[in-house]
Amino acid sequence: MTRYVEKLTPVDEALRLLKEKVTRLSETISLPVWEGQGLVVARDIVMPHDHPPRPKSAYDGYAVRSVDTPGKLKVVGEAPIGVTDVGLSISPGEAVYVTTGAYLPEGADAVVPEEYVDVEGEYIVVKEKYDKWSNVDPPGIYVKKGDVVVPRGTLLTPFDIVALLDVGITEAEFYRPLKVAIIETGNELFKPSSPEVVKEKVLKGLVVATTGDLVAWFIGEYLPWVQIHDLVTLPDELNTLVWYIERLLDHVDVVLVSGGTGPSEIDLFYRLPEALGGELVFRGLFVKGGRPTSAVVVNGKPIIGLSGYPISALHGFVRLVYPLLSYIGNVETPPAVPFVWAKLTKPLRIKRPRPIKVKLSFQDGQLYATPLEKKMQHSSASIALSMADGLALTLNREYQPGEEVLVYAYRLPKAYHNPSINF
Amino acid sequence: MTRYVEKLTPVDEALRLLKEKVTRLSETISLPVWEGQGLVVARDIVMPHDHPPRPKSAYDGYAVRSVDTPGKLKVVGEAPIGVTDVGLSISPGEAVYVTTGAYLPEGADAVVPEEYVDVEGEYIVVKEKYDKWSNVDPPGIYVKKGDVVVPRGTLLTPFDIVALLDVGITEAEFYRPLKVAIIETGNELFKPSSPEVVKEKVLKGLVVATTGDLVAWFIGEYLPWVQIHDLVTLPDELNTLVWYIERLLDHVDVVLVSGGTGPSEIDLFYRLPEALGGELVFRGLFVKGGRPTSAVVVNGKPIIGLSGYPISALHGFVRLVYPLLSYIGNVETPPAVPFVWAKLTKPLRIKRPRPIKVKLSFQDGQLYATPLEKKMQHSSASIALSMADGLALTLNREYQPGEEVLVYAYRLPKAYHNPSINF
Repeated sequence: MTRYVEKLTPVDEALRLLKEKVTRLSETISLPVWEGQGLVVARDIVMPHDHPPRPKSAYDGYAVRSVDTPGKLKVVGEAPIGVTDVGLSISPGEAVYVTTGAYLPEGADAVVPEEYVDVEGEYIVVKEKYDKWSNVDPPGIYVKKGDVVVPRGTLLTPFDIVALLDVGITEAEFYRPLKVAIIETGNELFKPSSPEVVKEKVLKGLVVATTGDLVAWFIGEYLPWVQIHDLVTLPDELNTLVWYIERLLDHVDVVLVSGGTGPSEIDLFYRLPEALGGELVFRGLFVKGGRPTSAVVVNGKPIIGLSGYPISALHGFVRLVYPLLSYIGNVETPPAVPFVWAKLTKPLRIKRPRPIKVKLSFQDGQLYATPLEKKMQHSSASIALSMADGLALTLNREYQPGEEVLVYAYRLPKAYHNPSINF
Repeated sequence: MTRYVEKLTPVDEALRLLKEKVTRLSETISLPVWEGQGLVVARDIVMPHDHPPRPKSAYDGYAVRSVDTPGKLKVVGEAPIGVTDVGLSISPGEAVYVTTGAYLPEGADAVVPEEYVDVEGEYIVVKEKYDKWSNVDPPGIYVKKGDVVVPRGTLLTPFDIVALLDVGITEAEFYRPLKVAIIETGNELFKPSSPEVVKEKVLKGLVVATTGDLVAWFIGEYLPWVQIHDLVTLPDELNTLVWYIERLLDHVDVVLVSGGTGPSEIDLFYRLPEALGGELVFRGLFVKGGRPTSAVVVNGKPIIGLSGYPISALHGFVRLVYPLLSYIGNVETPPAVPFVWAKLTKPLRIKRPRPIKVKLSFQDGQLYATPLEKKMQHSSASIALSMADGLALTLNREYQPGEEVLVYAYRLPKAYHNPSINF
């Protein structure tokens, strides 16, 4: 195997090759739905009964028989939400006080909002005609028994949990979390201690190990079905790296290695296939910022080499590893990553897909992306991140001003939320 | 004070009134930048020196004097990244092996990538002319001493941390986190135990307390400058609520109360101004879904009443509380919430700003939002959340098909990430 990266593999092709060789997650676990947040549903969640099962009040007011309206009715009891199972029922000429969400007493089929009645002692006067099911959710109006309410492959969100608990579905089958380890390599790396010491080391030429943290943060933020099992920093020592990966492969599904993926003598990734007895899937990705991204598969488990530069590593991650982890984890519904489409304000000529640092602005209902000046686009210009708002995920082609480009936004312009939200 | 909500206050007006009466956060703390993630920068972060301070290699290769190229040069040492501070220097006709990011040895002003040299024993042959600063980041090229790299009011992201650590800025001044308490009220509420018990209770008419968890999740996900101090569930008992809030006001900045904000006898929120000796700022918001949203201010601290319904509470939160907490916390750069603009596929006639549950689709580079059918839009139709992908934050007006609407997306269509990312 050559040390130099000669033929770069396009992202699509790299992903296709990997998908052929990796093993998808198949183990499932049964969990209470409130513990399933961020996990992938492994079997369609089906309604076990109509919802609501019985008529429910949609208002605070008086449950009545619609045929009795308008009229003067006797209030014979109260059925506030949560204390409904007391066998209350109403007869002709009667009403029961209910609160929003309460099941109606037997016999009632409409609710008169309390602000529309006149109270006269133990009687109420209803002035208008109320139709059957007025201010009431009738049985089965929302979903029927047998309906699929959450399909397989859905990443369960807090909104789905609210939905399921509301209808009394309390348990579901999920894929177990995908286990990933992250190894940062590099003799020059150190972890932060005190501000003074860090500053001194950085000015001497040492490098704070931020790449693993950044990738781990991205996973924690946007890939809830992935569990980070290990995050370690190692020196550029082949034997140590191999020893570590071999042990990790016993209990994680995917290993990410940042640094050591370049074409130099000191780069170790290219020696892994032989040392681990694995198969090299591709070496070098057709991107700028993350070019050394490479992959080895050992017994169906991918070991992905990422750049040592934080943004280049993240770029390789977003383009390749993110869809790969979705594939392995059986995710059918992408999570809500703040990707936005924005109009470019300047032309771009892109030879290899790359992340362009952009400043975002929002005017007259349109989001615009302005690339930072050229020197700030270098992988080494990390400081430029503080002057940008996001990374445009460009393709290898020319862009004219006014063309739309997909941007991963790590902050958004204030005006973008207007006029709906006055941030 | 009337029990009934007669005059609803528009969101803008409610926010304006609150801003006049609340106290903004002023306490600051000095922290290592890597501990400042999600906090608001309280003072402009300024470059203490040029960056890079000395010439840095942008490539793995040989540091040379540009005037010596092309030519045959003697390799006199190695200066890989991180071990540069060894006083290496080169004289005419000499070269030093460097790795990406390493400071150049004294005398060198260009780097020849290693793949472009022929190695002959202890000599290298450079075949082409390299200009001064070829493959080198010269001093001060990215930022100059005195430049503001992160302005006051910025919510520090992991990207800013990477940026700052790269240039050796290790400490900054932040506003302390904003402390918020959440109280859910409602006799009908219970917390989940086992799936069987929960199911039985829900079918009896009891309600799982999800509103506080949903709001807390939203805060944890998108408002990193906010710390949730308490999250409790209380019965509909005025004295208990007052007792609790009085104690909370000693140590939190904002109290959120969900439930008990309606116009009924059992609703307690309207009694708080008197019981707490606070000022009622407004009662009832001009929105649908969150209409009972109300606010009281006690000594500059807001107590916000939210609906008891999870989505209605979240709606009041997103429209009103989110901008309010940004204001109190001095946030100038909104975080990256997955708000997307989408074209409506159906007309909408909206009388009060409300969250419309929508299904998202992406075709030919355009995101579309299709509102779920009318009955699914009711606050009580929580199950509809599992059939939708997001909430359109509409204004009170008519929308024609093809008009753009802002959507909070809790999941995104697969195609939306294409073609850049092959999810």
